Amino acid sequence: MKRKSRSRRAKSTAIELSIRLDLPGIGHIGPGKIELLKQIRTHRSISAAARAMKMSYRRAWLLVQDLNDVFAEPIVEKWFGGTARGGATLTEAGDRLVASYEAVVQKSVDANRAVLNEILRSAQSREASRSSAS
Amino acid sequence: MKRKSRSRRAKSTAIELSIRLDLPGIGHIGPGKIELLKQIRTHRSISAAARAMKMSYRRAWLLVQDLNDVFAEPIVEKWFGGTARGGATLTEAGDRLVASYEAVVQKSVDANRAVLNEILRSAQSREASRSSAS
Repeated sequence: MKRKSRSRRAKSTAIELSIRLDLPGIGHIGPGKIELLKQIRTHRSISAAARAMKMSYRRAWLLVQDLNDVFAEPIVEKWFGGTARGGATLTEAGDRLVASYEAVVQKSVDANRAVLNEILRSAQSREASRSSAS
Repeated sequence: MKRKSRSRRAKSTAIELSIRLDLPGIGHIGPGKIELLKQIRTHRSISAAARAMKMSYRRAWLLVQDLNDVFAEPIVEKWFGGTARGGATLTEAGDRLVASYEAVVQKSVDANRAVLNEILRSAQSREASRSSAS
């Protein structure tokens, strides 16, 4: 509660960037695929990751195939059998991809902090004038 | 033609970034709205901009309303009458928004050149091994 006290609009803290990498002639990597990879890493299962993202298993599986097709090394590794009757996890290349993607987002935010704050201020001043008018 | 000679895959030159700005609790600004603004600036008309983007006038108009609602100052200005029987153009705030957005994309690319090239190489090596196998 204390954290909110500085502002009436606690949610308006900073602009976030959604970034999609467009590999020309090859494919796209965006927030959805990266989130799926992180969920697979957490759950060690494609179907559990799909459930966590409210996505069909088929869609998750196609996204994984897509990622494995884009890169020289597999990104997700599946196995069969064992006590958990199969599962999936990220390969080293998969871990590297997630880390690289997150670094790209973070560096983009860092490189643009001033202009992003300026854009947000020009939007928030509208919100402020609305609040004071109501 | 000469520019292509260094590579068999001339299209695979660099990763491009599609960036959406998420203003928390306020709205989104992404490549589609920015392209619409640039088309409005070029054509001085919302309907001509919509046609250029193969978008319905209604959709273009809603996107413009959305942008005008987000910011303190209007982004697109419409007028009626005159020899062209009305039209639209960007306000100064609109020009600033387009310039700021494009600066964000350019700075993000610049700040991440090394890691983006690394990601592209790890994808292209797959393409190369496919080409040589076929």
